[in-house]
Amino acid sequence: MEHLPDSGQLKLQEDRVDSQELFRGLFLHAFRDRVRLPDGETAAREYVVHPGAVMVVPLLDGGDDGLRVVMERQFRYPMGKVMLEFPAGKLDPGENSLHCAQRELREETGYTATQWGKAGTLHPVIAYSTEFIDVWFARGLQPGERQLDTEEFLEVFDVPFTAVLQGCHDGAITDAKTLIGAFWLQSHLSGQLPLHWQSLV
Amino acid sequence: MEHLPDSGQLKLQEDRVDSQELFRGLFLHAFRDRVRLPDGETAAREYVVHPGAVMVVPLLDGGDDGLRVVMERQFRYPMGKVMLEFPAGKLDPGENSLHCAQRELREETGYTATQWGKAGTLHPVIAYSTEFIDVWFARGLQPGERQLDTEEFLEVFDVPFTAVLQGCHDGAITDAKTLIGAFWLQSHLSGQLPLHWQSLV
Repeated sequence: MEHLPDSGQLKLQEDRVDSQELFRGLFLHAFRDRVRLPDGETAAREYVVHPGAVMVVPLLDGGDDGLRVVMERQFRYPMGKVMLEFPAGKLDPGENSLHCAQRELREETGYTATQWGKAGTLHPVIAYSTEFIDVWFARGLQPGERQLDTEEFLEVFDVPFTAVLQGCHDGAITDAKTLIGAFWLQSHLSGQLPLHWQSLV
Repeated sequence: MEHLPDSGQLKLQEDRVDSQELFRGLFLHAFRDRVRLPDGETAAREYVVHPGAVMVVPLLDGGDDGLRVVMERQFRYPMGKVMLEFPAGKLDPGENSLHCAQRELREETGYTATQWGKAGTLHPVIAYSTEFIDVWFARGLQPGERQLDTEEFLEVFDVPFTAVLQGCHDGAITDAKTLIGAFWLQSHLSGQLPLHWQSLV
């Protein structure tokens, strides 16, 4: 079988010459680096430094309904509207990915889960942010009390996974991480994406 | 059938109180707005304003090989490595999405295409950027000379679509827009995502 090419890093690499902090806001932390291009010239690269994040795809057994998933409605100010998303959040300093996933699921939805499987890692914005998002599937859900941050307003609902896939095709869901989480779940269900489930009981 | 909920906008909306430009760089243009939360309190929201972008999934008839797609290898400085991607680029001021898609495909890969279908729009980073990406499928490809921007170094290759899907499951492809383009193409091929093809000849 013909494969994807390897990275070919050496011919394309850009090396840092120097780095300047553009600003450190309450949330955004931005830099402008001068880089040496493959042809020896220099260029500027501006980007945001991000601590990384997790997203959780929470799976509910819907009985006769089939698989259901837990989602959120949240107003996203840069979009100017409410978006449909899987639960997600930024890593705290030093926090490991699975711990963050458990924390965000509990805080935002109240659910705890007995089994966790990492579906993969995605990079939402490779041109101008260092952000990565680890995507976890969670099952064996138990409802509980949620604990939202102040300044955090979101509504939790659950829905058949078939309706989510429909929304990934008709424009109802446009959030990149949520689209990818839904498609990775579809791939898992069809046997294309094997998972190692960790039990946390 | 049970559907996704509507947006429930009113209970979650955040309204701008005022807006402050944090900085205007060569590429990044950032703001901090004060917003009125649903409970009447105020909070700060920091975000980058982006002109929007397009991505093109270029389809080649591979004969006995089946469907092939055109991709790029490009060093992405915030990632510190070469990424595998579909061709993409930012909208010029006033430029429409399809024109931008044709331009980026021609400039980055040399290909022109006779048929174009819009697969959808995605939002890569809803927490802190206004960016949207329109995803176009292109077929009827004719090779030609590419015209890269200065400061742009990338390699073009084509590969069986089956190898791309494999890469979307094994971690070889982690760029969010590229993952979504591949999954939308899979959905199109399986009949879940109908397309209206526009002929440009």
